[in-house]
Amino acid sequence: MLKFPRKPFALAAIAAGLLSSSIAMGTEKRNVILIIGDGMDSHQITAARNYLVGAQQTLLLDSLPVTATVQVQAVDDRDPSKSVYVADSANSATTLATGVITSPGRIGTSAGDDKDLSTIAEQVKGAGFGAGIVSTASVTDATPASFISHISLRFCENPDMMKEAEALGGIIVDCSDDLKANGGLGSIAEQIADNNWDIVLGGGAKHFESVAEGQQKQTVLEQAQVNAYQIVTSAEGLQTITGDKVLGLFGPSTLPVRWQGTDGRTAEEPSPSILRQIDWRLGSVTLPDTMKCEDNPQYGATPSLKVMTEAALSHLSQKQNRGFFLMIESASIDKESHLRNPCGSIGELQQLEESLQSALSFANDNPNTLIIVTADHGQAAQIIPESSPYNAFGVAVYTPGHIARIETPEGSIMGINYATNDFLMEEHTGTDVSLFANALGRSFFGAHTSQAGIYQAIKGFLLPSQ
Amino acid sequence: MLKFPRKPFALAAIAAGLLSSSIAMGTEKRNVILIIGDGMDSHQITAARNYLVGAQQTLLLDSLPVTATVQVQAVDDRDPSKSVYVADSANSATTLATGVITSPGRIGTSAGDDKDLSTIAEQVKGAGFGAGIVSTASVTDATPASFISHISLRFCENPDMMKEAEALGGIIVDCSDDLKANGGLGSIAEQIADNNWDIVLGGGAKHFESVAEGQQKQTVLEQAQVNAYQIVTSAEGLQTITGDKVLGLFGPSTLPVRWQGTDGRTAEEPSPSILRQIDWRLGSVTLPDTMKCEDNPQYGATPSLKVMTEAALSHLSQKQNRGFFLMIESASIDKESHLRNPCGSIGELQQLEESLQSALSFANDNPNTLIIVTADHGQAAQIIPESSPYNAFGVAVYTPGHIARIETPEGSIMGINYATNDFLMEEHTGTDVSLFANALGRSFFGAHTSQAGIYQAIKGFLLPSQ
Repeated sequence: MLKFPRKPFALAAIAAGLLSSSIAMGTEKRNVILIIGDGMDSHQITAARNYLVGAQQTLLLDSLPVTATVQVQAVDDRDPSKSVYVADSANSATTLATGVITSPGRIGTSAGDDKDLSTIAEQVKGAGFGAGIVSTASVTDATPASFISHISLRFCENPDMMKEAEALGGIIVDCSDDLKANGGLGSIAEQIADNNWDIVLGGGAKHFESVAEGQQKQTVLEQAQVNAYQIVTSAEGLQTITGDKVLGLFGPSTLPVRWQGTDGRTAEEPSPSILRQIDWRLGSVTLPDTMKCEDNPQYGATPSLKVMTEAALSHLSQKQNRGFFLMIESASIDKESHLRNPCGSIGELQQLEESLQSALSFANDNPNTLIIVTADHGQAAQIIPESSPYNAFGVAVYTPGHIARIETPEGSIMGINYATNDFLMEEHTGTDVSLFANALGRSFFGAHTSQAGIYQAIKGFLLPSQ
Repeated sequence: MLKFPRKPFALAAIAAGLLSSSIAMGTEKRNVILIIGDGMDSHQITAARNYLVGAQQTLLLDSLPVTATVQVQAVDDRDPSKSVYVADSANSATTLATGVITSPGRIGTSAGDDKDLSTIAEQVKGAGFGAGIVSTASVTDATPASFISHISLRFCENPDMMKEAEALGGIIVDCSDDLKANGGLGSIAEQIADNNWDIVLGGGAKHFESVAEGQQKQTVLEQAQVNAYQIVTSAEGLQTITGDKVLGLFGPSTLPVRWQGTDGRTAEEPSPSILRQIDWRLGSVTLPDTMKCEDNPQYGATPSLKVMTEAALSHLSQKQNRGFFLMIESASIDKESHLRNPCGSIGELQQLEESLQSALSFANDNPNTLIIVTADHGQAAQIIPESSPYNAFGVAVYTPGHIARIETPEGSIMGINYATNDFLMEEHTGTDVSLFANALGRSFFGAHTSQAGIYQAIKGFLLPSQ
């Protein structure tokens, strides 16, 4: 037999509780926290697990109750009917943000015809939700930019980078169609300054130092202040947010990572003997020394991803809104893999774990919070034998690329191989990635999805009637 | 108001229907089909999808309703408390078969102390279920062997390979403790011949040609016949099985794969100009020509994995038993990745898809059939840009390993990189893999599991009370 509470007010309280926890009623705020581990494919997750907790243990990420495989899709800008098999952060984040598959390098714009694509951040903001961005990269970098700006090329981060500008490695940039003078929205930094995001936190201060387009002296940062952004530049500043709109810039470009290899070492090339260089059946090879992960002396007082996450959650949840969309990027899993620094990637994945812990804690207090963790694309790093089993055959077998042999805290040696090229920066890879979500994700994800499917899920949760 | 059928016999029919479809009642046969894609990590699945259906489409595998990430675990034989970060098919299949984490090279035996471990195939056979094995490798190869035999080293496949024998690449094998004369169970082929498996199909006929240990003339194959196995050697033979126990051997060792690259080409090394060899900032590089996948002329009349799967399902389901456990291995995803032949791996994954189709069709008619698809470990192949985007910087950027540039049917070019070493065979990698399952798997798998967890799930489904 059912027992009813004897006092009417208790019954009312229970009814109120049922209402407030019911998604179906639609009266409660709804929030989405999308955490993107840039380049966080299955090798990166496994390597971080092996180092952070040991191969027989599990990460916090592993404990999320929902998972799916995610197709990463890209098309050719010259012929958008043709598939491209390796994505970059620009096109993949654009798909996550807009549901549209586009071409590498593009930020919130369509392949071929260069149309601006409506992003989930813009849509929910327009519908009365809050919207925020947190990244360990520049806030103008490809992943954050794709949620809050529209431009034909990711390198056009500030007014000085819009035309005839030289980007990384000597590539010449041209975003002249996106100049305000030509009817465009301006550089990525200017677009952030011109808009009304509730909170944008990360690196990239240097992109706000340039004079804004059409101005004599006013920098992009001053433009943001005129547009009522409170500017924050330290972890301490995040504790005393008073403004309605916050722009936090904690370093000139990508924020420093937490860890490096012993004495700053990264993966290195094996050294074959002269005989081995002449004939692969002869001679021997000297592998790089093992290394440990140690604190990066550049890290200093950089606010952690967790500190930025908690500041953003606090700010967004205290405002009058229908709830919020918050994108959090752990950027340097990718960036340190490009640079063949596995300890950098592992420390960055540890930061993602800490940020996820804060998100789960927030969701515990705010049950209508959908948490999604995913990656944008694969990366070069591979876990391979730290010393080849084929050495048993009496020949010297080793990677043609670079290898780091990492001493893990559990007492074994983990080999991380980087061998997609011999350039200054490794390549992305074209693998499926994974999605992880809290229990609310069960209604929105089957076992297999795509980056466009993730956009649809976020939209379905926050804006079910649209 | 509930409506009851008016005629008693209709009620009885409905009740009978409920009974026969109810797992909870325990009166119905239960079956597990475990499909292992050897080396089938996320790169292999993505590459196969790109080629077989196109990057914007999905595979049959993608349609399975249940997925999980799977930790692949291994330990050091000299100190089983220490983790090893890259597994082989022997230790990983042993964990899938027994739930025990062991060391690379071991078949159904424990790390360090070399104890025989009870396998799921043995357990269910002992409990009145059928048990079968299907593989495109030799039936004595590591993956199938781990379910149906116990030996300290995977290379001890036949009586001639037990001691002072030279395995692949010159490694000297010693399984003398496993000789029958020393109280052991003999070689893997002899253990198969000595036991009572319902059906064992694959390659590896040469391992049954040796004289059995302790015999003057009797080969292992003759030993199997004495032990009442019907021997089958062709696809036609599979259509007319009459025996109670079947041993099908369709080739001397690994069965030929379906596809090869144009004119038998595999991945090749880029050719840098002399200037490029002197200084990476100078000169140019010639990448290997693109290739297509074409029929492998060696394939001939080899029975497909689908044909073997259907024969095994037919045989196992027609017998008087409580149901069955069937392990199906698509072996050459791994073997062709070792050999840098992406078309071989892709054609083999197509075979896995066809086998899965047969399994799903069987499960449709036999609802208490749990289908699990997984991989045993990662492999070398990586999808990378077929031509590096960094070439835009005016330098020649290319892999230090081998690359295949594959023309896909949808009209793009897919780059597959092999660069874990420069030996005759690439390395395995140490990544997590995925699990896919039909809806019955929902009760047995969370979002994250391990290979031991897969063993526990199979046991939990077939032998819930043990």
